[in-house]
Amino acid sequence: MASIRRVAVVGSGAVGGYYGCLMARAGAEVHFLLRSDYDAVARDGWQVKTPGGDFVVRPGQFHAHRSVETIPTPDLVLVATKATSNAALPALVRPLVGADTAVLIVQNGLGGAEVLEEAVGARHVLTGLSFICSNRVGPGKIDHIGFGLIRFGTACTGSVRAPQDVARELTALGLEVIASPDIARERWAKLMWNVPFNGLGAAMDVSVDRLLVEPGLALVTRLMHEVMDTAGALGIRFDHREQIIAAQIEKTARMGPYRTSMQLDRREGRPLEREAILSRPLAVAKQHGVATPVMEVVDAMVGAIAR
Amino acid sequence: MASIRRVAVVGSGAVGGYYGCLMARAGAEVHFLLRSDYDAVARDGWQVKTPGGDFVVRPGQFHAHRSVETIPTPDLVLVATKATSNAALPALVRPLVGADTAVLIVQNGLGGAEVLEEAVGARHVLTGLSFICSNRVGPGKIDHIGFGLIRFGTACTGSVRAPQDVARELTALGLEVIASPDIARERWAKLMWNVPFNGLGAAMDVSVDRLLVEPGLALVTRLMHEVMDTAGALGIRFDHREQIIAAQIEKTARMGPYRTSMQLDRREGRPLEREAILSRPLAVAKQHGVATPVMEVVDAMVGAIAR
Repeated sequence: MASIRRVAVVGSGAVGGYYGCLMARAGAEVHFLLRSDYDAVARDGWQVKTPGGDFVVRPGQFHAHRSVETIPTPDLVLVATKATSNAALPALVRPLVGADTAVLIVQNGLGGAEVLEEAVGARHVLTGLSFICSNRVGPGKIDHIGFGLIRFGTACTGSVRAPQDVARELTALGLEVIASPDIARERWAKLMWNVPFNGLGAAMDVSVDRLLVEPGLALVTRLMHEVMDTAGALGIRFDHREQIIAAQIEKTARMGPYRTSMQLDRREGRPLEREAILSRPLAVAKQHGVATPVMEVVDAMVGAIAR
Repeated sequence: MASIRRVAVVGSGAVGGYYGCLMARAGAEVHFLLRSDYDAVARDGWQVKTPGGDFVVRPGQFHAHRSVETIPTPDLVLVATKATSNAALPALVRPLVGADTAVLIVQNGLGGAEVLEEAVGARHVLTGLSFICSNRVGPGKIDHIGFGLIRFGTACTGSVRAPQDVARELTALGLEVIASPDIARERWAKLMWNVPFNGLGAAMDVSVDRLLVEPGLALVTRLMHEVMDTAGALGIRFDHREQIIAAQIEKTARMGPYRTSMQLDRREGRPLEREAILSRPLAVAKQHGVATPVMEVVDAMVGAIAR
């Protein structure tokens, strides 16, 4: 299998833009799909602030595109769009996929990988989670606060590119990645945080610190149990639940008055990732007869806000 | 029984101030207990804007007090404080109660009347609900938007003043009042509105119109059922529930993007009437084994916001 030389980035925002810039800096041929930022980025390139040392990626070091039609078939498509745009993914990604093209989607919650699998075939799709704190502060301007790990994998056998190979090559391109043998479990483990903190943060318009003391903490804890119960119905068991919950709470306490992306989306009037983070997990619970009374209320609240 | 000539108003805000002004205008000897507004009101009197015709109550037409100690024993104490101040009521009201003094408390939710009954004896206490839209727009300045009915009653036999007598006398003083034979039922009927709209409005920081379409409407409906279930455990039955709910929804739809008092209290950082509107009804439900999953979540959320 040829190595990863050419990469297309679909969703060139705070996350996709950051990873794309790392790869361009490492010498990959990176093609960014851009919309409103196209003019500024094509003209001025990227400026990345990051704890490891700020850097720029000049216009000659990457390719900017207004449409996928002009992007040559890449070895890897990195999809870093919001889950609210998942319905648009087939039309964006299908034209990019050649026989050996892997599509790595980095997205919280449920549903994104499934959309791509249906559109381009499961053998092409790798499903990932990013653990990153990064903001788009202007067109082509990224403020990377910290972290950056991508964990990814696939439940599919016979992938066009084996996760281990992709991990090795992306590491060579400057990314911090881990090919996980059980990405489904990791996805549910992340939902255990996303459901309470994104869900309650958006429903109530509060920062995470307000949810770490009673009576908010009781809601967080109940939601974490509901997520673990739901995962359990899929055969994904979480043992030592109290310790897992305590670790999540402790980690969150270190964040201070942090506002989750979903709370910020509410405040800015942007679409909310309700479906991926709440409605789909809830549908899984219902399908398996798992009781999730708090998730149900939070999902409805976020729906009431989102309209 | 002597008629009602002298009235003390405890809680001289948008509601207590309005009713006190009506009585002063009708010739009653009205004593207002005032705190931060004392100077302005004692000096300039009251200005009341109201659809029925704006009016003023000049300093010579009423009495202003900084402390209950200076108020002579009245025939009636009108208590119109927020439920968040209920713990302060015994000390405020006890000094005012003579042998024939009735104490009429006008307050949503549960707990206010009980505090007073314990402090001054149930024979003195009448428990009421006001259906009024009135704002305090400055010291001594009241903007009465509309309505004004007080429904009140008592479960106690041998009241120092019979509700019917008090109703007749207050009507003569310009108030719109109804002595209700079943005020407990009316209190729960009002909670049926307060719990969903004050509760969700504060928990989510949304105006009522956002709760009148799905998926918010489903939460409102479930909360209304939970309130009726809880009342049912106390022997207060609501038949034709669907019609009752439909009528409440229709009434609320006419309010437009109305913000409940609890939502406004949240926005202004004031104490929230969580206990009276949510926690006490919830405690009644728990005591009687009534399932109230949504109320439980909303109560915790409001608690998380209130701290």
